[in-house]
Amino acid sequence: MMAYADANELLTQIERIGVDEVRGGYSRPVFSEAEAQLREWFIRHAERRGLEVETDGNGIVWAWWDPAGHGRTGAIATGSHLDSVPGGGNFDGPLGVASALAALDVLVGRGIAPARPLALAVFPEEEGSRFGLACLGSRLATGASDPATVHALRDADGIGYDDAARAAGFDPDLIGPDPERLARLAAFVELHVEQGRGLIDLDRPIALAGGIIAHGRWHVRIDGRGDHAGATRMADRQDPVVVAARVIASLREQTLAVDEARGTVGRVHVTPGGTNVIASAAELWLDVRHRDDERVRAIVSAVAAAAADAAEAEGCTVTITEQSFSPTVDFDAGLREEMAEALPGAPVLDTGAGHDAGVLSEVVPSGMIFVRNPSGASHTPAEHAEPADVAAGVVALADVLEHLLTR
Amino acid sequence: MMAYADANELLTQIERIGVDEVRGGYSRPVFSEAEAQLREWFIRHAERRGLEVETDGNGIVWAWWDPAGHGRTGAIATGSHLDSVPGGGNFDGPLGVASALAALDVLVGRGIAPARPLALAVFPEEEGSRFGLACLGSRLATGASDPATVHALRDADGIGYDDAARAAGFDPDLIGPDPERLARLAAFVELHVEQGRGLIDLDRPIALAGGIIAHGRWHVRIDGRGDHAGATRMADRQDPVVVAARVIASLREQTLAVDEARGTVGRVHVTPGGTNVIASAAELWLDVRHRDDERVRAIVSAVAAAAADAAEAEGCTVTITEQSFSPTVDFDAGLREEMAEALPGAPVLDTGAGHDAGVLSEVVPSGMIFVRNPSGASHTPAEHAEPADVAAGVVALADVLEHLLTR
Repeated sequence: MMAYADANELLTQIERIGVDEVRGGYSRPVFSEAEAQLREWFIRHAERRGLEVETDGNGIVWAWWDPAGHGRTGAIATGSHLDSVPGGGNFDGPLGVASALAALDVLVGRGIAPARPLALAVFPEEEGSRFGLACLGSRLATGASDPATVHALRDADGIGYDDAARAAGFDPDLIGPDPERLARLAAFVELHVEQGRGLIDLDRPIALAGGIIAHGRWHVRIDGRGDHAGATRMADRQDPVVVAARVIASLREQTLAVDEARGTVGRVHVTPGGTNVIASAAELWLDVRHRDDERVRAIVSAVAAAAADAAEAEGCTVTITEQSFSPTVDFDAGLREEMAEALPGAPVLDTGAGHDAGVLSEVVPSGMIFVRNPSGASHTPAEHAEPADVAAGVVALADVLEHLLTR
Repeated sequence: MMAYADANELLTQIERIGVDEVRGGYSRPVFSEAEAQLREWFIRHAERRGLEVETDGNGIVWAWWDPAGHGRTGAIATGSHLDSVPGGGNFDGPLGVASALAALDVLVGRGIAPARPLALAVFPEEEGSRFGLACLGSRLATGASDPATVHALRDADGIGYDDAARAAGFDPDLIGPDPERLARLAAFVELHVEQGRGLIDLDRPIALAGGIIAHGRWHVRIDGRGDHAGATRMADRQDPVVVAARVIASLREQTLAVDEARGTVGRVHVTPGGTNVIASAAELWLDVRHRDDERVRAIVSAVAAAAADAAEAEGCTVTITEQSFSPTVDFDAGLREEMAEALPGAPVLDTGAGHDAGVLSEVVPSGMIFVRNPSGASHTPAEHAEPADVAAGVVALADVLEHLLTR
C-alpha cells in the first residue's frame, strides 16, 4: 500500500493558506483565493488516490471511490467544508475533509470489499460568512434555498453572488436543486471538530450527533438622525446606537431566562461611524438557538418588543428581518443506530452549530461524528483537536464507513 | 469691479466633489482626492483674485491680500476647513472658506483702504475623521500636538499619516510648530455654520462665539474570548459586545445626569464581526463635552467604573485611553468687543463643536461668527444654511474684517 499523508499531516499542509494577519487564525471565504487553494489541495489528494472528481453546478466537489464498479447509486458520502468564518481555526471544516481522505486510506489498507460506492464531498459557503446564508451549497442542492434568493445575495463589500462566482470560475446560472445527484446517496456522514465542551465534560474523544438545535438569524436596523456629537443637546437626539445597546442587553437578558438557549450579537455596523458624529443608523444581527423552535421565536419576539420600546423612547425606528430559520434537526435514528454498531458505547451529543449534514438530512439519511476540542472554543483560532483525537476520529469514521459500505 | 461667484454660487461649484453614495452627503477626508480637488478650487479662486498663495509645512493654505504692501505682519486672517466627517454636509468648513472669498470681494467692492494685510486660510483635517486627531493642522502649527505623535497616527485602513501625506504630495518631515508664521497674525476670525439650534431658538441669522465647551475623546477596548455562537453555553461566554452595550448605556446615563453635558458613542468596531461568532474584541469611542472641564472628566470616570464592573462580570478586560482633551476655550474678549462694534446687537453663543479658531486662540486672538442652520443638525447631510443667511454671513464677515483691517 502506498503511504499517504495522515489526517494530521494533511491539516499541516494547509496551515499557511488563508492566514488572517489582522484577526488571527484563518479567513477563507467562499470564492476567495484561499478557498480555491484549499479546493485544489483536496482535488489533488483525491486524484492521487485514483478518485474520480466532479464539481457540480452548486460548487460541491464530489470525489468517487468505486473500485468494484457499482456506478453512482446507493452511495455512502462523507466530507465537510473548507471555507471559514473570519478569523476562524484550521479544524472547523477541514478536519472532516482531511479525515475523509485519511479514512479512505484506512479502508484501502484494510482491503475491504465495498458493496457500494463511496463519495468524498466538499461543500461551499458552509459558514455563510461571505453572503450571510449558511450551508449555501447544500441548501441550493436540496432546494432549501432557491436560486433567485442566492442570485440576489451581496457580500459586505457589495459584490453580488453571481459576480463573485464568475470571478472564481463558477457559472452562477447552474445553481439550483439537484435531486438526481442527491438521489445517488444512501447516507451522508460528516465528521466535525466539536464546537462546545460536551466531550471535555464526558472525557471522551468521539461522539455521535443526536440533533442540531434550532437556529435563526435576524437583521436589526435602527434608523435615527445623524447629528453633531458636541452641538446637539441630549434632549434633541435620536441616537440609534443607544437603541442598539438596549437590543444587545435585551437579547442577553431574554436568552439567560430560557434554559439552554443561546443568543449572540457578534456583528454591529454603525453609519457613518465617526467618533464625533451621532450615528444616523445602526445595524446588528441576532443569532438565536434552542432545541425548541418556539423558544427561539419567543426570545426574538421579546427582543423585538424591547427594541420597539427603546426605539420609540429615542425617536428612532427599528426594522427586524428574519434572514434564516432552521428548525431543530434530529438526525436519522436508523443511521445513528448503524453508526453506533460500528462505534459501540459512543456518547450522543446535540450541537448548537449548523452543518451541511443538517440540511442534507431533509433528503438523505445523515449523521455526524464529533471529535473532542480541548479548548471548547469554536470560530476562533483557539479551536483545536489533539493529534491523538484526530487519529481516533479517522478510525471511527473508517469503522462507520466500512460498516455502511459493506452492509 | 469684476463679478465673482458669490458664496452661494461658490458652494454650488463644489457640490459634486466627494459625494458619498453609500452614506449620503460628503466624505472628504484629509489627503483624499476629494480634499485635493477642494484645495485646488480654493487656490484657483484665490489666484483669480490676485492673492499670493502659499502652503506651509503643516498643509495650511494661506492666500494673502495686501494691496497696500504692508508685508506679512499684523495681519487679519479668516478662513476655515474643507475636509468633512464621513457622510457630512457641504457647509461645515466650506461655508467659512467660501464666505472668506466672498467677503474679500465685498471689501474690494467697497474700496476699503486696508491698514493691514488680510490672509484667507484653509486648515487640514479639522474633523480628525481620518487620523482621529481633530484640528490637526492648527494643533501642529501652535505646538498643541507634537510631530512625533502625528507621525505615529494611522487611519482606519492602517495607512500611516506620513505615507498618506506623501501620497498626496506633502512632505511629512516639514510638520511641526510654526511660531514665526503665526506671529504674523493680529487676529483670526472663523465663520462657520452653526451646529446646533441656538440661532433657531433666537430667530436670528448670525451670532458671535462666546466659547467652545471642553471636549475629550476616549478609546475603549474590550477583550473577551472569541467563540461559536451556537455551541457555547451562555455561562461559558466572555462576550465583549455585551460589555460594550453596557458602556454605551452608562455613558448615556451619566451624561443625562449632568445639565448641558454631551456624551456620544458614534463609532463601534467588533472583531471578527461574524453573525455566528461571539466576538473576541469590541472597540468604541467616547466623545464627551461640557463647559466645565472637570465635569467631562467626572463623566468619563463614572463610565470607566461601570465598564470595569461590566467587564469583570463578563470575564473580559477593558482598556480606556484618552485620545484627546481640549479644555473649555473662551475666545478673546477684546476681539469679540471689536467684532460686536461691527455687528451691534449680535447674540453670543457657546458651541459644543471644536474648531481651528479654538486651537489658534492659544496664540492668536481669535473669534467666530456662526450662521443659522435651519435643521439644527450637523455632521450629516441635513445640515444647511439658507441662501439669505449665507449672504448675511458674508456681509457680517466683511463688516468685521473691514473694522479690523482699517483700525
